[in-house]
Amino acid sequence: MRLKICISYDGTHFHGWQRQKNTPNTIQEIFETRLSQIANTRVTAVASGRTDAGVHARVQVLHAEVPETAPELDRLRHGLNSLLPPDIRVLLIEKAGADFHAQRDAVRKTYLYFIDPHTVQAPELRDYAWHLRLPLDWRAMEEATGALVGEHDFKAFCAADSTANTTVRTIFEARWGVHEWRGVGHTYPLRVLRLTGSGFLKNMVRSIAGTLVHIGGGKSGPELIRNALTSRDRKAAGPTAPPHGLWLWDVLYT
Amino acid sequence: MRLKICISYDGTHFHGWQRQKNTPNTIQEIFETRLSQIANTRVTAVASGRTDAGVHARVQVLHAEVPETAPELDRLRHGLNSLLPPDIRVLLIEKAGADFHAQRDAVRKTYLYFIDPHTVQAPELRDYAWHLRLPLDWRAMEEATGALVGEHDFKAFCAADSTANTTVRTIFEARWGVHEWRGVGHTYPLRVLRLTGSGFLKNMVRSIAGTLVHIGGGKSGPELIRNALTSRDRKAAGPTAPPHGLWLWDVLYT
Repeated sequence: MRLKICISYDGTHFHGWQRQKNTPNTIQEIFETRLSQIANTRVTAVASGRTDAGVHARVQVLHAEVPETAPELDRLRHGLNSLLPPDIRVLLIEKAGADFHAQRDAVRKTYLYFIDPHTVQAPELRDYAWHLRLPLDWRAMEEATGALVGEHDFKAFCAADSTANTTVRTIFEARWGVHEWRGVGHTYPLRVLRLTGSGFLKNMVRSIAGTLVHIGGGKSGPELIRNALTSRDRKAAGPTAPPHGLWLWDVLYT
Repeated sequence: MRLKICISYDGTHFHGWQRQKNTPNTIQEIFETRLSQIANTRVTAVASGRTDAGVHARVQVLHAEVPETAPELDRLRHGLNSLLPPDIRVLLIEKAGADFHAQRDAVRKTYLYFIDPHTVQAPELRDYAWHLRLPLDWRAMEEATGALVGEHDFKAFCAADSTANTTVRTIFEARWGVHEWRGVGHTYPLRVLRLTGSGFLKNMVRSIAGTLVHIGGGKSGPELIRNALTSRDRKAAGPTAPPHGLWLWDVLYT
């Protein structure tokens, strides 16, 4: 029986999604161990895509094949949430078609990158938004962001060790907004970059966010995005933003 | 020169406010070390009161005596925030009267206790609100809460190892409300108990919250609060709620 599983996680204390040799502390390894325990057989979980160490998921979508003898879906979710650490939560489990594939069938993905411009960062936010005290030119950043929309070769915004066949991707939406954050102890607005695309390369959102902040800080003009895209050269773009401001937000299937 | 210093902290990874022998990981020890470093002399910080391990402070008020040669207040705050870990933040520093005393001069304190009634707890909230999936009888809890207001002997809601001279305290306000929590990744309402009083005994808010949840879960009627107050016996009240839902919210001075 094939399952579609939606999970949410705080990536702070994990070495990213993907299972790694000699690193038991990945979300995939922890999740598969717990699911296998409940399903009483070795189960593999396939995600919509990897997330790096420190990157969070509001929603990450997985598929997994479990035997028909596995517990009923509500009990399975409850059992998983009892066994998993509190920074990984199962939001939803449903039966999927026998050929549903969480990675290959994803047609759109949305990532959000959060920036905290408050003078003193609330302790609650330290792992969830990039704290930047310097004044940023939001108008220049918004102007530059527009150049990302459409089909482009994003090689300049891709980590050197990427294993992708092609670096061409389509961005459907790229815009800045305000998130009226209301934590438990503190409350103030955050700035947020929203990117929706056909797919994303390794470090792509983080290097876009870093380049936009580079522009916002006045170290380059808004034309930097367009020039970097044309150059296909990582060195032509700005630095990579830290992982903790990045959230995998949504995955859409056909 | 005497300073009034307002700080905020996430208490998750500390052994409470108060300095302890053989435990370097207290907020007081870390704060004093950093302040002494900047002031270039050994400085002691006195807080409005202790908080236990795992308890947070939206605002905790301190006083400290620093030499006239210490950096100007804005630079001092900035310097402290650079040296301190991100789970302790300095919000405000101002000059105080020579006899200002953060503990003795406090006339009112407010604590909030957060309960997360959502089916699946957002990873972001795991250290900040007590997750309770069982249905609670909020009407019974509200009724019981009213009995706390006024001057009472709170011995039944006090840890056995308390060093307080008297267990009589006055509660000015005690009520339940809703906190419309809007985190970075998720958003849903929390239930929150607000207690304002002349002062609080060791574990007092946590044992009140635990007793109210005991009542809300149907394990006892609303009269339990009144009966426990009369008994002056810790065993007559309910269990102690976990520390991570508790926030020191505000301290008022004359």
